[in-house]
Amino acid sequence: MHVNQNADLPRAALPGVEHVTLAGAQNGLKNLSIWQQSIAPEGSSPPHRHDCEEVVLIKAGSGELHVAGRVHRFGPDTTLVLPRNAPHQIFNTGEGPLELIAVFAVSPVAVYLPDGQPIELPWTS
Amino acid sequence: MHVNQNADLPRAALPGVEHVTLAGAQNGLKNLSIWQQSIAPEGSSPPHRHDCEEVVLIKAGSGELHVAGRVHRFGPDTTLVLPRNAPHQIFNTGEGPLELIAVFAVSPVAVYLPDGQPIELPWTS
Repeated sequence: MHVNQNADLPRAALPGVEHVTLAGAQNGLKNLSIWQQSIAPEGSSPPHRHDCEEVVLIKAGSGELHVAGRVHRFGPDTTLVLPRNAPHQIFNTGEGPLELIAVFAVSPVAVYLPDGQPIELPWTS
Repeated sequence: MHVNQNADLPRAALPGVEHVTLAGAQNGLKNLSIWQQSIAPEGSSPPHRHDCEEVVLIKAGSGELHVAGRVHRFGPDTTLVLPRNAPHQIFNTGEGPLELIAVFAVSPVAVYLPDGQPIELPWTS
């Protein structure tokens, strides 16, 4: 059992992406990881995939999800459901930060480029 | 791949608890369910447990988590991590609604009373 004060959790970043791991293997979880991210205007995630199901909760901002050759535009209060291993990329197309929670069905979470090359992360997942 | 507009999703309720399933088996998920709930002032969840890991994201309000004979008080912007099968109960002890997102490592999610009796839910999980 853990009660995490989100404001006290370690912060990390990739270019244009601020990150906090809200819950994961460091809390004893094996089947859930929860990430909170803020993507800056004009920023994006890298194109990537995970070997697990993922759900992205869009809290604020607007953007595009590119997946399986299609573009899905979204606004705030939207839920994106991604199948295991679907290569995808999320773009902030709005004027403010894109605030999201990403939920994964495994912990720790590995991230791969679409060709399968692992992406090294600057945070515990 | 699904893009769910949260405002368009079906709403359900238990006494004192408003519920929306943001993502789950109806989106093809097997290992993730995401519930959005609002617990009214003086309301609570029933005492219950799940046969999977659970993380509760507290968005707004304040309350108490009762688990394993202990009481954990929490405010907004807090993350609660619950081990598989830990009987627990969440109380709204604040003056406004307690707004939360509950994340489960399976879909659909079964809910049991602490003694193992299943709780029938009025929503798809």
